[in-house]
Amino acid sequence: MANISGNTTLLGGIEAGGTKFNCVIANCAGDMLAQRVIPTTTPEQTLNACADFFHENQASVGKISALGIGSFGPIELDKRAPAYGSIKKTPKKGWSNTQIVGFFKDALDVPVAFETDVNAAAMGEFTAGVAQGCDSFVYVTIGTGIGAGVMIDGKLIQGIAHPEVGHMLIAHHPLDEPKISSCPFHASCVEGLASGAALNLRFAEGIHEVRDNHVIWDIESHYLAVLCVNLTQTYSPRKIVLGGGVMQREHLLPKIRKEFLRLINGYAHELAIEGVDDYLVLASASGLSGVIGALALAKSVRNS
Amino acid sequence: MANISGNTTLLGGIEAGGTKFNCVIANCAGDMLAQRVIPTTTPEQTLNACADFFHENQASVGKISALGIGSFGPIELDKRAPAYGSIKKTPKKGWSNTQIVGFFKDALDVPVAFETDVNAAAMGEFTAGVAQGCDSFVYVTIGTGIGAGVMIDGKLIQGIAHPEVGHMLIAHHPLDEPKISSCPFHASCVEGLASGAALNLRFAEGIHEVRDNHVIWDIESHYLAVLCVNLTQTYSPRKIVLGGGVMQREHLLPKIRKEFLRLINGYAHELAIEGVDDYLVLASASGLSGVIGALALAKSVRNS
Repeated sequence: MANISGNTTLLGGIEAGGTKFNCVIANCAGDMLAQRVIPTTTPEQTLNACADFFHENQASVGKISALGIGSFGPIELDKRAPAYGSIKKTPKKGWSNTQIVGFFKDALDVPVAFETDVNAAAMGEFTAGVAQGCDSFVYVTIGTGIGAGVMIDGKLIQGIAHPEVGHMLIAHHPLDEPKISSCPFHASCVEGLASGAALNLRFAEGIHEVRDNHVIWDIESHYLAVLCVNLTQTYSPRKIVLGGGVMQREHLLPKIRKEFLRLINGYAHELAIEGVDDYLVLASASGLSGVIGALALAKSVRNS
Repeated sequence: MANISGNTTLLGGIEAGGTKFNCVIANCAGDMLAQRVIPTTTPEQTLNACADFFHENQASVGKISALGIGSFGPIELDKRAPAYGSIKKTPKKGWSNTQIVGFFKDALDVPVAFETDVNAAAMGEFTAGVAQGCDSFVYVTIGTGIGAGVMIDGKLIQGIAHPEVGHMLIAHHPLDEPKISSCPFHASCVEGLASGAALNLRFAEGIHEVRDNHVIWDIESHYLAVLCVNLTQTYSPRKIVLGGGVMQREHLLPKIRKEFLRLINGYAHELAIEGVDDYLVLASASGLSGVIGALALAKSVRNS
């Protein structure tokens, strides 16, 4: 971590997760000047601890000119909505209807950019990760839940809410018995069948204890391959970047690629078929995509 | 059809389908000054007949300043590719590797805009149909095949090829036996299960003869509802516009809406749930979306 900011503009970034808030101050070149990880407890405690981080560090490294936040959700992204900038109804206890943007605008008096956590991570992969130079791609996280940030022609897509690709409906795998879904809404969506939470529901000992040669990994790679086929047929992206805790099982990616090729059966651009090894790729290993993306978001809203 | 152009700029449009090419000349206000429907036979015959239409009518109404084409496919849309502007490998006999854009640039000496037929139809719905003023929506055609044009923030999305949402993989309906797919690539994609071709494969007498109370319509509306759920979870659009021959069965749309609400089970923006009657809608009845969209495309490339 560098110690000097010189006289360049400084930016703040927050990766706001359900477990921890990762706060950083960096200069425009991307050098991290200060960082602090704050556990996600109550909104009041957590948000004030974040504000304290910025106040304390600004005293030594200088004032930030903008803040970018990638947040867990669902969040309100419609700038015309009264609740813009808040976390909406969420299973995360105590956090429903928490106003995030308003809090930090008041506390830090800077422009604030606000995005989904997956969009911020996608922006991070685009800025400094495996999607550099690739302006049409999908970043998918397969963790406790499944979600995606989608960049098309250099822009993150949003629509009336934001993509919820984890809730795409797919077929049950015939070997996946008994039928279990971790999704309270859908018996057969990708998240309900293939997320980390779904896998853990299938094994009392937890999915971490399950060996690589267990049939569950054939089932899991099938579900994720179906997801990748459907993302290909909808967004026609240049690349699909797979991240999140479940993808840390190293044997999974080659199995997903193989099943993807079998299922799509040649019906896609050659870059996705012959080029599958560059098409279905792992997210950057640093784990910094979220904060790097938040800083990129900050840059986009600062008053220059 | 109006007979005078005045001194305004004229535009040409072609809806290039597998059965017919619909050619028009219009002024910038959208008044159609000349129109001719040309059957799709061989590329040489069809394309020359189109060129003749423009030459003959330009002599009376005036020269067009640009041409827009919405074409059946698959087509090459990558402007950096040598085959840009051509129909790629297609089941339509004799049409594989036909250069469309080059032909009309040579024949008419004007800038040519080239898009998929569904993108042109989407543009038509946006310009003068049910999606006016709605800059994020999906236009789906359920005809012989199933395809979609997708507008996000006012721009048609493309990616490395173009969306092929008909080839999204979905679950077989348990009552849809024996298992039949009209898609040569996939045993269980939307097009293979729910297109007009798929329906016709199930009935020797043709789907037109099948009554509204047959169970096939429950199955069909289920498949199309799954498609609508998955389009909702990927694109998060403001509206889904359903067109094509299959949607002319009037009892289908209410069934799709009902099944969509059951399947998505509340997990979407209220505009898609409470507002479902404005969210899942039929395409404009005029059948002119394709040529109106082609004219809008022409407008976007003319030298002003």
